[in-house]
Amino acid sequence: MKKFQIGILGLGTVGTGVIEILREQSENFKKRFGVSFQTKKVLVKNINKKRSVDLQGIELTEKIEDIIGDPDIDIVIELIGGKTIAKKAIIASLEAKKNVISANKDLIADDGRQLADLAEKNNVGFYYEAAVAGAIPILRALENSLDSDRIESINGIINGTSNFILSKMRQQKMSYRQALSLAQELGFAEADPTNDVDGIDAAYKLQILADFAFGKQIEQKDIQMSGIRTVTQQDLNDVSELGYEIKLLANASLIDGRLQFSVGPTLVPKDHPLASVQNENNAIFVSAAYAGGLMFYGPGAGKLPTANSVIADLLELTSKAPKNPRFNSQFKSDTALAGPKNRIASRYIVFKVADRPGAMHKLSGFFLMSNINFRNIRQYDPIDGSTRVVIITYPASDAQLNPVKTTIRQAKGVEIVHEFKLLERK
Amino acid sequence: MKKFQIGILGLGTVGTGVIEILREQSENFKKRFGVSFQTKKVLVKNINKKRSVDLQGIELTEKIEDIIGDPDIDIVIELIGGKTIAKKAIIASLEAKKNVISANKDLIADDGRQLADLAEKNNVGFYYEAAVAGAIPILRALENSLDSDRIESINGIINGTSNFILSKMRQQKMSYRQALSLAQELGFAEADPTNDVDGIDAAYKLQILADFAFGKQIEQKDIQMSGIRTVTQQDLNDVSELGYEIKLLANASLIDGRLQFSVGPTLVPKDHPLASVQNENNAIFVSAAYAGGLMFYGPGAGKLPTANSVIADLLELTSKAPKNPRFNSQFKSDTALAGPKNRIASRYIVFKVADRPGAMHKLSGFFLMSNINFRNIRQYDPIDGSTRVVIITYPASDAQLNPVKTTIRQAKGVEIVHEFKLLERK
Repeated sequence: MKKFQIGILGLGTVGTGVIEILREQSENFKKRFGVSFQTKKVLVKNINKKRSVDLQGIELTEKIEDIIGDPDIDIVIELIGGKTIAKKAIIASLEAKKNVISANKDLIADDGRQLADLAEKNNVGFYYEAAVAGAIPILRALENSLDSDRIESINGIINGTSNFILSKMRQQKMSYRQALSLAQELGFAEADPTNDVDGIDAAYKLQILADFAFGKQIEQKDIQMSGIRTVTQQDLNDVSELGYEIKLLANASLIDGRLQFSVGPTLVPKDHPLASVQNENNAIFVSAAYAGGLMFYGPGAGKLPTANSVIADLLELTSKAPKNPRFNSQFKSDTALAGPKNRIASRYIVFKVADRPGAMHKLSGFFLMSNINFRNIRQYDPIDGSTRVVIITYPASDAQLNPVKTTIRQAKGVEIVHEFKLLERK
Repeated sequence: MKKFQIGILGLGTVGTGVIEILREQSENFKKRFGVSFQTKKVLVKNINKKRSVDLQGIELTEKIEDIIGDPDIDIVIELIGGKTIAKKAIIASLEAKKNVISANKDLIADDGRQLADLAEKNNVGFYYEAAVAGAIPILRALENSLDSDRIESINGIINGTSNFILSKMRQQKMSYRQALSLAQELGFAEADPTNDVDGIDAAYKLQILADFAFGKQIEQKDIQMSGIRTVTQQDLNDVSELGYEIKLLANASLIDGRLQFSVGPTLVPKDHPLASVQNENNAIFVSAAYAGGLMFYGPGAGKLPTANSVIADLLELTSKAPKNPRFNSQFKSDTALAGPKNRIASRYIVFKVADRPGAMHKLSGFFLMSNINFRNIRQYDPIDGSTRVVIITYPASDAQLNPVKTTIRQAKGVEIVHEFKLLERK
């Protein structure tokens, strides 16, 4: 029997779930894996607060040093979140030759590679499956099953809040505001929903996915980002008639040897598996040269789903790879990022156009200048002197499209309401 | 650089794919994983046959002993299929301390545990991700990410041929016969489709999944099996109006501490992720106590998708777990199998009933005897003196239902056309 002592930083939702699972599965893990875990200490903000979870035999502390300085603790599970204290604690733990498991996507998005290198230098493990898409074992699948392949693209619904809002808008004809309120009532969205609805949370996860899929550590500024605040019932209806659903997709694509990254509302063909992912669920669709199109679907958040990913890391660390703990395969590529010429996609663009003769002729002329071809065009009945025009283009690069947009911004009687990308049918 | 010499048994579709990927990725694998593979020998039926794949530097042989008796060969990849020769070859290879990778579901379904034990005894690896669901890394996910969890059920679309046929029947209103012919034309179905359409192929894969998910080695006789030959357009329409699709599902469920296994046409609620899995694709939906509902989707067959799973095994064996090669976790449980009292499901039952007064009264009386309640009832306009009656029951056990069926078989003026299970909404 191998015995391990654990220190947990943070006793919020996920920390509580971790303690619950460790209690429930204690006998099972001894029997099946020959490992025994003792949760020795847990860092909390207030040791006097009442807790719902059984903490018998566990020492609560408000001092982080009590845990990272405790020589008996083999494994630190970091669940406090944030970038500053968490980073210091992880570095100190790794340097003290403690294994670390974390669910901290914000931190790992930017510093994951640096921390993984530090773990390797100290011959300990640094695992963080729970940081991306909750219960879905997507990082381990990329690491252990798709490392043999050449990945071409990743398209993920990796923000449950946004997907919940878009689902309710579609299923129950709610407005964005109504759906957001419902999400807030049900605890799927925070009082300030910025991180979720503007794509920031999805972008953090995309940074981590990019590292595992393409061996490339990127920064948030490398990602073209837009959120779901401007999506309307009319958009959902327009695209539904044309055979699409709108999803907030995080995309990473390798096109012509260059990598491009975006997060934004995206038209997904209804027969694509991502189109039917509903409510707060997450799904990641991976296109690879050999495996083809694979999708990994499941709960992207929640106490036990996320805690299960932490526990799976714990078992790998202690039972399967105790001598060579390695999560991020140190896959490093120097693939260039795409510039405007290489960032190619079909686009759904909505215009507000003055209701007068020649308006469409003028608008279509702007696109002709850049040789951009249209796949679908719809003009709707005018309201109050202006008309809604929806155009879906064939694939066009940012280099083609940007001058068109600049021209339109300077033109009279036409404005761009918004622009979403299309996920191409495969 | 670690160097490995490989012998491949069988140069069919998957074997060709393995050789192609190893050629294409040779430099990449050296750089990224520090491993170098040389395909030394390949077993073929006829060494004079023309091959499309580049075989430069590879020795072809018609004698299996040339490979399993070659002391230079470290890893044997078994792709000949079948139970007799393949089993002997795998046993001989493991006993000669060679690692083995196989895609042979028929063999592993019954003998996987025995072969895994033999591999462990000889301290070599026996990997077979490719045996279930082609490119989908479902065995590794069960082994490495869900071993921390308590799995409650698995529902899989794991026979691409059947799913293709049912999809075409639904999408293009084809009859079963027409859809089967199309599948045969496109190479998705064999001249004798028995293994696919009667659920035998899915049952083999279910046996392997049962071992990984529940630690239980079962035999094909432990699985309640039925196929898709009797599914009609009328069935697909009936259930669509009630909110379901029909899919050939392989099911393993742990209910009240007992395991039950079935393969058969199943009514899947349209909002369940399995309902939208189209054509030849596979998907496995896992329900677990902590993780919740996870789905793994992708190509279940094909040259490169299946070969990629073989290569992923090869990398794990050589680069990640060289000292402790272990695929099947030796998870052994003595969970009992469910008897008729514990095999509980809602059922869709189609009857042919004589068109006369009292017919429904008589039929409903039979169900009342066993206290089975109905969720939906539909009777259709009579044709040629008999009428189609469709009943969906609430959950009922085989012990409740079997006497009803016996009574109906002996009654006049009513017969059972067929009976499918329902996948319950979660």
